[in-house]
Order: sequence, then C-alpha cells, then structure tokens
Amino acid sequence: MTGRVGPDQVRTITCVGTGVIGAGWGAYFLARGFDVIAWDPAPGAEGRLRHLIDAAWPALTDLGLADSADRARLTFEPDLARACSETDFIQESAPEDLELKQDLLARIDAVTAPEVVISSSTSGYPMSDMQTRCAHPERTVVGHPFNPPYLIPLVEVVGGKLTSEDTVTWASDFFRYAGKSVITMQSEVPGFIANRLQEALWREALHMVNAGEATVEQIDLSITDGPGLRWPIQGPLLTFHLAGGQGGMAHMLDHFGPSLKSPWTRLEAPELTAELRDAVVDGCAEEAGDRSIDELVAERDAGVIAILRALGRV
Amino acid sequence: MTGRVGPDQVRTITCVGTGVIGAGWGAYFLARGFDVIAWDPAPGAEGRLRHLIDAAWPALTDLGLADSADRARLTFEPDLARACSETDFIQESAPEDLELKQDLLARIDAVTAPEVVISSSTSGYPMSDMQTRCAHPERTVVGHPFNPPYLIPLVEVVGGKLTSEDTVTWASDFFRYAGKSVITMQSEVPGFIANRLQEALWREALHMVNAGEATVEQIDLSITDGPGLRWPIQGPLLTFHLAGGQGGMAHMLDHFGPSLKSPWTRLEAPELTAELRDAVVDGCAEEAGDRSIDELVAERDAGVIAILRALGRV
Repeated sequence: MTGRVGPDQVRTITCVGTGVIGAGWGAYFLARGFDVIAWDPAPGAEGRLRHLIDAAWPALTDLGLADSADRARLTFEPDLARACSETDFIQESAPEDLELKQDLLARIDAVTAPEVVISSSTSGYPMSDMQTRCAHPERTVVGHPFNPPYLIPLVEVVGGKLTSEDTVTWASDFFRYAGKSVITMQSEVPGFIANRLQEALWREALHMVNAGEATVEQIDLSITDGPGLRWPIQGPLLTFHLAGGQGGMAHMLDHFGPSLKSPWTRLEAPELTAELRDAVVDGCAEEAGDRSIDELVAERDAGVIAILRALGRV
Repeated sequence: MTGRVGPDQVRTITCVGTGVIGAGWGAYFLARGFDVIAWDPAPGAEGRLRHLIDAAWPALTDLGLADSADRARLTFEPDLARACSETDFIQESAPEDLELKQDLLARIDAVTAPEVVISSSTSGYPMSDMQTRCAHPERTVVGHPFNPPYLIPLVEVVGGKLTSEDTVTWASDFFRYAGKSVITMQSEVPGFIANRLQEALWREALHMVNAGEATVEQIDLSITDGPGLRWPIQGPLLTFHLAGGQGGMAHMLDHFGPSLKSPWTRLEAPELTAELRDAVVDGCAEEAGDRSIDELVAERDAGVIAILRALGRV
C-alpha cells in the first residue's frame, strides 16, 4: 500500500487503551526502543500506565533493553486524533466489549492515515465483527497477545473478511521484527487458538469444581507439578506424540483413539476419521522434522530439568 | 493394618509392567535408593527396561541421586509370585486395558502378602472397576504418575469403593516420602484431574485440526510460547485470578462469566451459579494465601524469566 512504512521502519507506536494489556504493550514497545504514544479516556489512566510500566521495567531490564530504550519516550496524549496523527502503527487494547470495539476502531480509523495498520488485542472477537464501521477496514487486523505482553512471546495474527492480505503479512512481519513469536492464522475462529485451548481446560476445571471432584488448588497443582512442566518445552500434541513411545502419535491414535469417546470430559469428541488421524500424525511428523523420538525425549528431559532448576524446585 | 511397614520404612519395591511408565518408575525408585524388583512377561522386556533406565540415569544423576542409589539394585524376576513375595510396595504399570488390569491385579493380589499396598499407574480407570477380582481389594489404590515419572513430580492418589482409607493415606505418605508431589483425591472420577484437563485441551485441539482452523504446529506453538510458559509456575485458575487485575478471580467471573456461554469451545459450560462462582473465588483466595496480587505477579514474572533463561530463549 502506498505510503505504508516497512515493518522494520516503525519508529512510533500508538497504544489505544492502557489497562493491564495496553500498558503491558506500552512497556514492551518502550523496552524495544520505540517511541510510544498512549491514549486512554479513563480518569487517572496516565498515572496507572506509568505505574504499570515502572513495575514491568526491572523485568524488562533484566531481559535486556534495546540500546535506545527509554521510558522518557512515552507520551500520554489525551486527544485521540493527535495520538493517531503521527504514528507508524496502532495497537488497540480497549475493554472486551464488541460495541465499544466497533465504535473505537471506527474513531481511530477516522483520524489515522489510511496506510497505517491498526491492530486489536481482542482476546476473542473476530476482526470481521469489529471492523464493520471503519472506512478503511482493509488495514485493521487482530494482534492478540498474552498476559503479560512484555514477557510472553506469542502474538496471534488474523485478519477479518475486509482485511487485506498485505495487512496480515505486514502485521506478522512487524510483530516478528519487534521480537514476538507470531502465529498467522489463515481463518477466523472465535478465541483464536491458545484461548480456545485455555477455555476448554478452564471449563473442564469449572465442571470439576462444580461437581466437587477437585478443589481449585488441586486443579492448579495438577498442572504446575504435572503436564504444565512439559508445556513450555513441547506443546500438547507433541507431548502425546512422545506418550506413544517409539511409535509416536500414530501408535497413540491407533491404540487410544477409541478412548476419545470415553466420558472423560464433557466436551464432545470429534469423529476420529482416517483424515483426522492422518492430519494429526502428519502434523507431528512435520513438526518433529529430522529429530528422532530419542532426541525429542532428550530435549524434553533437559528442558524439564532446566525449568525445575530455574524455578528453584531442585 | 497388621504387618504393614511404615511409608518411610519401604526398602523394596516391585514394578509390575516395565514399558515407558513402569521403567520410568523403576529408574526413579532406583535413583531414590530403593531396591527394585521388576516383572514383565513381554519377550525382551529386561533388555528394554535396562536400556530405558540407562537412558534416564544421566538426568537422574544430574538431579542428584540418593546416597545408596545403584542400578545394580535392580533385579529382573521372570516369576510373578517370586517378584511379589518379598516386597514392601507394588507399582503396577501394565497396558491400559481394563480386562487385563482386572486380571493382573487379581494375580498380583493372590501372590502378595495382604498388608502390602498395590498401586496402579492407570491413567484413567477408577480403582473400583479394576479391583473387582482381588481377594484383598482394600490394599489396592491408584497412584497415577506423569510421563516421565522420574522427572514430573505429580502423583494422583485415589482409592476405589473397596479401598481402605488407611491404604489411601499410606500410599499418599509413601509417594511423598519418595519425593513426589501428591494429590489425594476424595472421590473417583475417570481420568482423575490432570488428564481430564489435558483431554479437554486435546479434544479442542483435535476439533481445530479437524476443522482446518489450526495446524498441529500452530497449536503446539500457541501453548509453548503462550500460556504454557505460565503453567509450570501458576495453574490455570490462578492464571485467571491474575488476569482479573487487582480484582482477581472475583472480577474475572463477575465480568467474564457471561462469556462462558460463548461458543469458544465445543465443551458445554456448566451453569455459573452463585455457589460455583464463590467456590472458585474462595479457592483462589485460599490458594493465594497472604500473597498480594502484586506479589503473585512478581512471582510469575520472575518464574517466566527463569524459564526463558533456563530454556535458552533469552
């Protein structure tokens, strides 16, 4: 698009909405050496924003600041039009309310040069539902972070029906340039990927609490001292790939496939068709690449030990 | 029970079944300084067992062996009766097949002194369904580990209908004495706690793969670079407690409770009654103890950094 700066040419970022997520983005962008302009209409927002950034700064310093990083490069701008007039990128992190997001995105859109990409931190709404009132919806995109955005690497990027492919590519490249781990999704699904997984787990946890089968503390302990220790190293599917022994995911699905139907959760399982089975098996093989099962096990073990050490548990 | 040794008096442990889980238990118990007797009827089982233990030994050495730990204290015994005749504790880790488990537990039960506790590694069957053919079912109990049992601390302990309370207490105390992190469940639920949570996530992942919404690699990356980095430090419920900001879980449920009903997963959500809401809020408060939100955030941040460092990502 004419006039759009390259993803690695971004110098100034506007953070619209400075609650926990917006302030976290602000802290992260400052630490990476960007100029940050912040806007939030709530009374006392600037004070809370500066407090949150100061609270995050020691962690960010510990991780290593960009040479030019400076908290003095933060400007709090009470006027939305001025906050958006001279910027290279906008990250919106307003409260999770569809009407509010539709309205706010339209307001941002109206005062921002049409080539500037506007990204939303929404944790669940498809951009198709949020971009409806924008005059330039093609430059709006979801860039969904995880709390705290200054420490958790993941950003999920996905466009809406009216978003241009160029915008999705640009946003993915920009977040990668800014140091994030980016998943670019090909299709919109409410909750994106990680939140759908988290929510499935969360609802099962609520069922267990509701039925008196487990306490909150038992549920959390079952993750922190159990499978949670593996998940920073290998995701849930690669974890099951290893649980299949040398036979990997194929053995796993061929032997335990039928137990998908056992009533372990209140989630209805999909039909395990040959296509699904193959898609999962092939996906694991692709992810494993040229690493053998033994190498993956060694990787996992070294990682778990490193984590146990890092957390002072051994 | 007459003749049962104290949980901290156990010297000899019999591992029945020496696949990935049984061998992992064997390696762990040897590393903690126990004598281990192993039995497995599969051809070549002894060779595979010794290979698996040798593979785990460097990690176990790195974590710190008990003074008396010695791989020479492993005996492979091809006769089940002899394997069970002189032992203080039995851990069964046979394949996940209900008929097979019922039969095997009955066979173990018939050749083991009645005061010896028999624990099963089953990853999902209630002990009530497995102990049906035992003459002394009161000493049978589930002791469910996580792969690899020599690294992941968690063991879920739960009895069946015919299990004595003394057995559940003894097994919990023994696993704790042996260095594990123990959850003692009050009631039987298929899949116990962690596996129900894992399965909920796993099925949602399968739905996404099935619908073409995400690839295996995207799903795993969404966890390893996203919420998975938090889960070794704080479980899923405490995670949402922090997502509520200073208002914690109460704010979270009061504001986002209605979105439980949004179609983010194919899992039907429970009715968010006042009782359920309070149970979750109170459970979080209890788990947080006297730690403030700020302290929990600082704990989380320090932990995430430590993990990122430990895994060589920063």
